[in-house]
Amino acid sequence: MYVTKVNTDLQRERDNCTFNITELTNILDGGAQKTAERKLREDTVLKQLYNTTDVPAIYLSHKEKYEAAVKKACAMFQMIRKLQEEENAGMENYQALLGGSLGSAILGDGNPITLHYVMFIPTVMGQGTVEQQAYWIGRAFNLSIIGTYAQTELGHGTFIRGLETTATYDPSTKEFVLNSPTLTSYKWWPGGLAHTANYCIVMAQLYTQGKCHGIHPFIVQLRDEETHMPLPGIKVGEIGAKLGMNGTNNGFLGFEHVRIPRDFMLMKNSKVLEDGTYVNAPSSKLTYGTMMFVRVMLVNDMCNYIAKAVTIATRYSAIRRQSQPKPNEPEPQILDYLTQQHKLLVGIASVHAFKTNADWIWNMYNNVTSEMESGDMERLPELHALSCCLKAIVTADAAECVERCRLACGGHGYMLASNLPVMYGLVTAACTYEGENTVLLLQTARYLVKSWQQASSGNTLTPTVSYISRVGNGRRSPPWDNTIEGIVEGFFNVSAGKIGLCVAQIEKRQKSGMSYEDAWNMTSVQLISASEAHCRAIILSTYYKETQELVKTVSAELKTVLLQLVDLYVVYWALARLGDLLRFTSISERDIEQLQNWYENTMSKLRTNAVGLVDAFDIRDEILNSTLGSYDGRAYERLMEEAMKSPLNAQPVNESFHKYLKPLMQGKL
Amino acid sequence: MYVTKVNTDLQRERDNCTFNITELTNILDGGAQKTAERKLREDTVLKQLYNTTDVPAIYLSHKEKYEAAVKKACAMFQMIRKLQEEENAGMENYQALLGGSLGSAILGDGNPITLHYVMFIPTVMGQGTVEQQAYWIGRAFNLSIIGTYAQTELGHGTFIRGLETTATYDPSTKEFVLNSPTLTSYKWWPGGLAHTANYCIVMAQLYTQGKCHGIHPFIVQLRDEETHMPLPGIKVGEIGAKLGMNGTNNGFLGFEHVRIPRDFMLMKNSKVLEDGTYVNAPSSKLTYGTMMFVRVMLVNDMCNYIAKAVTIATRYSAIRRQSQPKPNEPEPQILDYLTQQHKLLVGIASVHAFKTNADWIWNMYNNVTSEMESGDMERLPELHALSCCLKAIVTADAAECVERCRLACGGHGYMLASNLPVMYGLVTAACTYEGENTVLLLQTARYLVKSWQQASSGNTLTPTVSYISRVGNGRRSPPWDNTIEGIVEGFFNVSAGKIGLCVAQIEKRQKSGMSYEDAWNMTSVQLISASEAHCRAIILSTYYKETQELVKTVSAELKTVLLQLVDLYVVYWALARLGDLLRFTSISERDIEQLQNWYENTMSKLRTNAVGLVDAFDIRDEILNSTLGSYDGRAYERLMEEAMKSPLNAQPVNESFHKYLKPLMQGKL
Repeated sequence: MYVTKVNTDLQRERDNCTFNITELTNILDGGAQKTAERKLREDTVLKQLYNTTDVPAIYLSHKEKYEAAVKKACAMFQMIRKLQEEENAGMENYQALLGGSLGSAILGDGNPITLHYVMFIPTVMGQGTVEQQAYWIGRAFNLSIIGTYAQTELGHGTFIRGLETTATYDPSTKEFVLNSPTLTSYKWWPGGLAHTANYCIVMAQLYTQGKCHGIHPFIVQLRDEETHMPLPGIKVGEIGAKLGMNGTNNGFLGFEHVRIPRDFMLMKNSKVLEDGTYVNAPSSKLTYGTMMFVRVMLVNDMCNYIAKAVTIATRYSAIRRQSQPKPNEPEPQILDYLTQQHKLLVGIASVHAFKTNADWIWNMYNNVTSEMESGDMERLPELHALSCCLKAIVTADAAECVERCRLACGGHGYMLASNLPVMYGLVTAACTYEGENTVLLLQTARYLVKSWQQASSGNTLTPTVSYISRVGNGRRSPPWDNTIEGIVEGFFNVSAGKIGLCVAQIEKRQKSGMSYEDAWNMTSVQLISASEAHCRAIILSTYYKETQELVKTVSAELKTVLLQLVDLYVVYWALARLGDLLRFTSISERDIEQLQNWYENTMSKLRTNAVGLVDAFDIRDEILNSTLGSYDGRAYERLMEEAMKSPLNAQPVNESFHKYLKPLMQGKL
Repeated sequence: MYVTKVNTDLQRERDNCTFNITELTNILDGGAQKTAERKLREDTVLKQLYNTTDVPAIYLSHKEKYEAAVKKACAMFQMIRKLQEEENAGMENYQALLGGSLGSAILGDGNPITLHYVMFIPTVMGQGTVEQQAYWIGRAFNLSIIGTYAQTELGHGTFIRGLETTATYDPSTKEFVLNSPTLTSYKWWPGGLAHTANYCIVMAQLYTQGKCHGIHPFIVQLRDEETHMPLPGIKVGEIGAKLGMNGTNNGFLGFEHVRIPRDFMLMKNSKVLEDGTYVNAPSSKLTYGTMMFVRVMLVNDMCNYIAKAVTIATRYSAIRRQSQPKPNEPEPQILDYLTQQHKLLVGIASVHAFKTNADWIWNMYNNVTSEMESGDMERLPELHALSCCLKAIVTADAAECVERCRLACGGHGYMLASNLPVMYGLVTAACTYEGENTVLLLQTARYLVKSWQQASSGNTLTPTVSYISRVGNGRRSPPWDNTIEGIVEGFFNVSAGKIGLCVAQIEKRQKSGMSYEDAWNMTSVQLISASEAHCRAIILSTYYKETQELVKTVSAELKTVLLQLVDLYVVYWALARLGDLLRFTSISERDIEQLQNWYENTMSKLRTNAVGLVDAFDIRDEILNSTLGSYDGRAYERLMEEAMKSPLNAQPVNESFHKYLKPLMQGKL
């Protein structure tokens, strides 16, 4: 797409930018070389797969949306296959196409084949024996079969032990019999399950020799490879329209005594021998790995969405003009309003804060997994606790941020062509999948309470919770230090204080006669708050510390801006959590008024570079896919151009006039 | 719909309810007689108009959605016309069908003819001369013509003076010439404008004798009455797909020098004489009335949506079971988790709080308008300020509440068949239309700052801001009183304190050399916070006081529950605004810990009656329109039944398999 004339307001913003945009882009990509690779990848993929001539998906029926998604997904995987053949299919290409923003530029509302790569193949590799891998992986990589992964059931989500689907071993035929004993045991939600996949990994309760051994993975063929017809005993279909992701083809699946060979159970860990003897798994902790990996990846994904949303809203705010606060002056750009800056700038800062944290936890994840491979499981619970709360807070913040950006665009943000509603649909889904946020925060809370108790018994704590013993001893805190470092320290005080209060509450309730479980439940609203406080402290601290290191290596101009972003982000959260700071630190009213002015002045400083900062995210128009946010700022022209693509506008008079309106108006209905 | 077997968990909840549900329903309706009337109205309308055999709208294309909406809207207005002929069309019937939940049960995603009744007819009546009313109203009531109302333009929203469409008087032909000089001057958004209405009230800059006289209303014919073809010079069409309301047929409209007769300008207030002389309006304050009316009505509407969302989520939480906190016990109902009660119960209380406030401001509105009719405009600014902040806070809270309910239903809340996503689309739209919330809060802030300055000069303040002079003198407040009354008083202290800080900030900035406008802008984030604090204080105080009166007239059992709801709501907000209370009152850490326990214990008490409380909202299954929330609690059965209605499930193999998937899998793509 060649760039036509740029909106003059937007051009002036760029002219006024005080730093080198490319320098920041390169940092965000991980170096100039990575930027070049990304751009090349985008060029190649979009040239082949991006299509502007189809009717936009927002006008299609649910069924047409699926059919369009299959068409595009097949073209995409055909391309990936070609890259494989050219031995050019690096991890980054996969990731960009399957999870990243490049993939969503092509399949904006979900990809029905993603789970084949993201869950089916990895599960066979992680849980299949060498023989099973040899049997399945070739055909799967080759796309001769398309698989998915079915765990969640109609009546059972996060609590995996409650799943009802059974796989009963029959030694007489050496087969497992899969069965769905109830309506609530139907598999429900897996992507691609409805009409796309012909194979599936099914998580089911394993029964052998009359005994249940819990949840295990089984490969089941769902559909005939030639005709695609569901096999006998397989009840499969789609679950219906959703808030978003209507291209993913989420399905349901029920079994009526479906038989599969014994070796279709994935047996790398646990086994069932031919005679039905169950052989136990060596370690169940290994499965934590995948869950953590997905959550860590999600944090990165969320950064992409926030960056897109804030790019759209910031550019639009530079070209939109409204009101006339000063008589005889023109209407200001809405970006000049402090209330608008308040909605947008924290979003820009969040991208940097979360990206820094994503890199940091990614390193930690790699360290821990390599420790695990050498048998050292010590830091696993810590990483698990961290990945839980980080996933919960980042997805929740991302959803709020995308929605705030949408509302900041006024009525035009409500148009699907702004792309903001679609993005919200994708981001808010992440608050529920891969562990529902409330459940995850309570898992982190369990770790925090345990850490507090260990600290009380004088034990040394793992690094990310070590502050508990440092500050957790007394409730009164040191003199308040009204600097970024002081605020970050204050957040650790808050977190430690909240954990301490929770522990005291639980103990008090137990002493009054409650069971531990009931005392925990009655304290759970406070526990969630403690868990959030812990996560905020970690995010702020990591962002602050890592940026201190980063700015040593950048130009003076960029350094100024990066440090302003840290100021903005940390002071924003201090003001948002004043109640906590007042309770658990010695911050004064005078400090608060200073913080407020600090926040307002930092916004004014950053306003100059707002457009430059979102330009640095370097998101192509095809990926933004938004009437409001394109690089040239021609928002009004694009709104009209997109409206003209509505099939309703193809005819001046809709047939419903003749059928209903005219008879109504002429009293002949 | 006959009720089949009720889910046993849900039945047990009802058996355990401690109060008489019908008693509460009658109170909410305004008496047993009103309940009976509502039920009769629902029976009549739903029997005639509710249709379960069509393909659900969620599966249709954008174009099909519009066509289905026209069909249903025509049937609805045909029914209204019949009621008119039977002289049976009371205000309440109109309201229920056009704005209320009954209308949305039939036209779930918007009604393309609503603005004809809600804006076109009222504007002709309010702004037309007697002759103009005689000419237009008969045909409009009779539906011989269908009108809409076009104000907002592509480039201009809240700031009405900025509109660009021109209406220039030509005395030589005694006509106005309507013109759209730019792309941004195109009308954009009006409901029904795209393909439904054939007439339109257009707000345009009036030019006569070479001078602009500002915005005035003109009636323009858009389409031929017989053929429905757009008339020459009229550029009309639809603006495209949106987050919600895809049945409303929002349109754009441009004029290429379109001529209309002089008397198509609505001239009750201002006039243009035949020779082009402009005669000024007697009063422009009268137009405030309509805006305030719509905002007051909106508060009521929002109550309906919150009630629906919380009914769905509460019933679902009673039938959904998850996890196993205690070994050897069954999975608990998720309603038993305090974190779930935290998400739902405040929603139930919000319905009562907002309904009380809606009734209260409705009385105030009626008093003020009757004062205005006798020439007394004194309380108009106060009512305006109040309606602005109440609209902003209630719509924002409602959106958050509906979304919280959706997320509280986990993955199943993401299904469109839960109806929660569709409701969110409707509710969040209200945060933008009828005055964007940030803009409205700043309007209230202007009144608050003015009131503070008047109090400083020793003037008496109007009733709803009189607390400013009462508490605004000193920053230090009286000893904290840890009761509901004390908390409410504390919120007034917070509001007064924040207003005072804003005034001081603005003055300080002016002294440092800023203009008033710039000082205002730099303080605007704090001003919004002050405006919100004012509104919270009013809402809490009104809810508390009115309930004290109400409970004098109810049974002892119901009184207990209604007072628990007030406790819950007030303590919830105290805990949510602890930072403010700590800054502006003398609340202590000990008080806070007591409040926290008070909140937790009140939730435990209300949990018993949660299902009874939502049953008392008495929302029929057809109006809830939700797989998760129906009265019988058969959520899983309904999820499966609704899934089977997806057109994708009509065939076992989708044609995209043969076209794309199979060639991909066989390497022949």
